[in-house]
Amino acid sequence: MTTPAEPLRYAILGSGAVGGLYGAMLARSGCDVHFLLHSDFEHVRENGLRIDSVLGDFVLESPQVYDSVESMPKCDVVIIALKSTRNALLDEWLPRVVADDGVVLTLQNGLDVEADVRRTIPAGRVLGGCCFLCSNKVGPGHIHHLDYGRIAFGAYQEAGVDPLRANEVGRRIEADMQSAGIDANWSDDLAKTRWRKLMWNIPFNGLSVVLDASTDRIIGSQPGRDLANQLIAEVHAGAAACGVEIDEKAIRATMEHTETMVPYDSSMRLDFLAKRPMEVEAIFGNPLRAIGDRASEIAPSISMLYQQLAFFNEAICQDA
Amino acid sequence: MTTPAEPLRYAILGSGAVGGLYGAMLARSGCDVHFLLHSDFEHVRENGLRIDSVLGDFVLESPQVYDSVESMPKCDVVIIALKSTRNALLDEWLPRVVADDGVVLTLQNGLDVEADVRRTIPAGRVLGGCCFLCSNKVGPGHIHHLDYGRIAFGAYQEAGVDPLRANEVGRRIEADMQSAGIDANWSDDLAKTRWRKLMWNIPFNGLSVVLDASTDRIIGSQPGRDLANQLIAEVHAGAAACGVEIDEKAIRATMEHTETMVPYDSSMRLDFLAKRPMEVEAIFGNPLRAIGDRASEIAPSISMLYQQLAFFNEAICQDA
Repeated sequence: MTTPAEPLRYAILGSGAVGGLYGAMLARSGCDVHFLLHSDFEHVRENGLRIDSVLGDFVLESPQVYDSVESMPKCDVVIIALKSTRNALLDEWLPRVVADDGVVLTLQNGLDVEADVRRTIPAGRVLGGCCFLCSNKVGPGHIHHLDYGRIAFGAYQEAGVDPLRANEVGRRIEADMQSAGIDANWSDDLAKTRWRKLMWNIPFNGLSVVLDASTDRIIGSQPGRDLANQLIAEVHAGAAACGVEIDEKAIRATMEHTETMVPYDSSMRLDFLAKRPMEVEAIFGNPLRAIGDRASEIAPSISMLYQQLAFFNEAICQDA
Repeated sequence: MTTPAEPLRYAILGSGAVGGLYGAMLARSGCDVHFLLHSDFEHVRENGLRIDSVLGDFVLESPQVYDSVESMPKCDVVIIALKSTRNALLDEWLPRVVADDGVVLTLQNGLDVEADVRRTIPAGRVLGGCCFLCSNKVGPGHIHHLDYGRIAFGAYQEAGVDPLRANEVGRRIEADMQSAGIDANWSDDLAKTRWRKLMWNIPFNGLSVVLDASTDRIIGSQPGRDLANQLIAEVHAGAAACGVEIDEKAIRATMEHTETMVPYDSSMRLDFLAKRPMEVEAIFGNPLRAIGDRASEIAPSISMLYQQLAFFNEAICQDA
């Protein structure tokens, strides 16, 4: 007989549409969850976290909230749900909040965002995940979860590294999440999971900004559908060029999935409309760099969309 | 000794930024010019045509104006300066206003717009031209000509057709224009002239809409420059695929030309901002169709831009 392990202590860095939702669900189910907040700190301390969700509405009355990393306890699991545009902060934050044998799970969009974590966290203790959900922060400490909710996550794959610790803690995170009502799924192939998610993010985040349209308008127009289909096929081909084989049926499935989705403004479109820096490098730049020299040939439409978004981002960052 | 020919009688269909400017310059120099107007008819009849131009400001006090084609005299030269989105009107208009041996010169943007003229006008009597200028209609009967001003025009090339009449009248138009102070240049190769113009129109009309930016902002940003360069190179390659060889130096020259241009909102951007249908088929669709089956391979960025613009045009036409 083995003694049951101590419960995991969680930190949530970035308590918005994703971190706020999953953190609140974990805390509601009894997990020890510590939330880092900034502008919403006072509001959430007084009013709690309000979750309007297709899975059921609730208010997390008295979350453990912090307005700086310095005041947080060391945690076994640090979940990153910040925008990747702010990853420079991680270099200072992670060493302060990650316990000695703790792990970091980044739920950020894009590809290779784990590399930003690895600057301060040793190999074998980094996990990454993709969230398949429609969720928006609609006000201070107020999250509206509209549709879906699945997380797929796994250990960050690095040549020559056996991620024993990441696997072990990862399986416990999966169990905690499932107990909390989160549709969490362990992935033995994080790269494949990330590329699969990019098959949605690249077309629909990108087009929603450049075409100034929600997903239903893109899907509802023939040129919009043609563009989306072309981009999805290029992500599929880009993954293959990186040695990641995805079933061809996923191309059609991504379109069908979007057709049945509620009308949705992607996170990138919300950032654009709010004049916040967009996650262009994580979602577009990193995959194109992963494809390498042949990117403009394998993925000409992604390359063009990347430059169009970079143009918009440049203007946003100059204004900021 | 030959008797001098009777002066040419001109009709201007579409008296906006291009037709209004050149028509007023021809009339000022003594040519017999008849202007078709619509919304501006009353204003121009009372106030004349006001031209603010880098070549010198003037008001054409009493132009010969008409509010319908029916009331116009038959003309030796009919200059089309309407938007090509309205070319369905030509089928009714041209037979009424073109003299028995008259010619039609279309100054519309894009490729193969002459085919719309040929539906009612016999082979050998059609000319096309490209205008290299920055000019906008800024109010009723009020044109602001900001920069440049060259016209290059020539006979519409059709297999098996010797455009004797187009060539003969074309040379007289050139002389009239030059006497009027217009930098008019005869072209023996209209297709080449049109493709050369597309090297500017495709990148800068298209990007100005999709990036929501004037030419100086596009040129002033690295991603904007990269996109423009890519598109210019694809137009050059597309021309070659259609048997039109353009000196490679034209790629660099197009960028340099735009760098020294005044900050300018392209006609397509002005249409977009005013929610008027854009000339997407003439400028993008026709060249891609001319390239044919290999268009998505030779011109992937043009293909994508075409679909993006088609998406916007669809929304404009649904609202209209």
